[in-house]
Amino acid sequence: MLKYQQIAIEIEKYIEEQELQQGDKLPVLEHFMAHFKVSKSTITKSLELLERKGVVYQVRGSGIFVRRHKRKGYISLLSNQGFKRELEDAQISSKPLQLEVRKPSKEAALNLNLHEDEDVYYVKRIRYINGETLCVEESYYNKAIVTYLNKEIVSESIFGYIREGLGLKIGFSDMYMQMDQLDENEAVHLGLKKGEPKLTVETVFHLTNGQPFDFSRVVYNYKQSRFFLQTNSDT
Amino acid sequence: MLKYQQIAIEIEKYIEEQELQQGDKLPVLEHFMAHFKVSKSTITKSLELLERKGVVYQVRGSGIFVRRHKRKGYISLLSNQGFKRELEDAQISSKPLQLEVRKPSKEAALNLNLHEDEDVYYVKRIRYINGETLCVEESYYNKAIVTYLNKEIVSESIFGYIREGLGLKIGFSDMYMQMDQLDENEAVHLGLKKGEPKLTVETVFHLTNGQPFDFSRVVYNYKQSRFFLQTNSDT
Repeated sequence: MLKYQQIAIEIEKYIEEQELQQGDKLPVLEHFMAHFKVSKSTITKSLELLERKGVVYQVRGSGIFVRRHKRKGYISLLSNQGFKRELEDAQISSKPLQLEVRKPSKEAALNLNLHEDEDVYYVKRIRYINGETLCVEESYYNKAIVTYLNKEIVSESIFGYIREGLGLKIGFSDMYMQMDQLDENEAVHLGLKKGEPKLTVETVFHLTNGQPFDFSRVVYNYKQSRFFLQTNSDT
Repeated sequence: MLKYQQIAIEIEKYIEEQELQQGDKLPVLEHFMAHFKVSKSTITKSLELLERKGVVYQVRGSGIFVRRHKRKGYISLLSNQGFKRELEDAQISSKPLQLEVRKPSKEAALNLNLHEDEDVYYVKRIRYINGETLCVEESYYNKAIVTYLNKEIVSESIFGYIREGLGLKIGFSDMYMQMDQLDENEAVHLGLKKGEPKLTVETVFHLTNGQPFDFSRVVYNYKQSRFFLQTNSDT
């Protein structure tokens, strides 16, 4: 982790510990420069990172302010897969249903840029939030990249393992959402009734070098799915 | 608009016109510097903006590549309100149901940081996509900021008017999503049946100075709601 990233985490911690609220003003740059003993350009990069992450906003000529949403119990839409840190408030657990090496479906092959005779790890699991079913997840991992998975890993954080165990750098992702009604099988997994609402989120995850390594389809329990999303003006 | 923003738009146009695909490599920085007759730092800023917008990705030591998702008919989750440009492919229209100055609900007052005796514009409208009902939208605009609205404006792009007509700078927003089943009234507006799925998206929009000016609640027709969302590694 680079210096400016570390400092960004420190500043974020400070905001949480001080229980600063949306609109509260942060100390000036010079304060942070002295406190962390770093250059102006490092602090500027830290604050730009925090702005992209939706932690602060900058008002030209007037300062840097805290961004903090007011609602409890919402899951960050961008952090619910693989970005576990922001979910620390909630208890998330996983029950693996299936784990095997197989050939990809047509759709998985297309999304992962694979030939249909190449291998993928197929993982199906149910995820729970605070003891309730949150979602059913099916994922296809390109086995040439994610070379090894086992039952213990898929019971915990697969992305944590990919990053720390395999040393891969997770980059951008493309997410597709749509709503429909639960089929029989999904309803059973989620403890709901056929025909009740579902939200399906398909995501293609890429490494920082642009290679897609994971195609996942997640069907959410509508009773547990409250998401929030912060956006910036120029994204 | 600043120079680097203009150039970012030019580069985006170039990608579209050339029909470049995900993973295609862009010309080197020097090419763009010569072509647009600008400095390296300007081009760098343009490309950083395009990276934040999910148009390109940069691989250290290897170049800049095109990011483009493969699916048609998905609405950008971040651009369906007020960010009309990206919806140009689809025909969006609005039918106003209500437009009046009133006192805010408790919830609207809380989200807009208003007292309950201050005025808001309340707007309710149905939006259509390619002739089908897309959503029912209720919005509360702080009248001290959005000082004037009329029926013609709310039939078209309210955000376009806020930006160009009122000269306000739209900044960040906080979005909350949840799913449930349609009630009778919503079902009638959307041409669906009571009990069918709905997605409710509540958004608080802020100016670049941090002031919230619009609190909206949008109930989507699940048959028309296919969203995509691009994320970057460090957001």
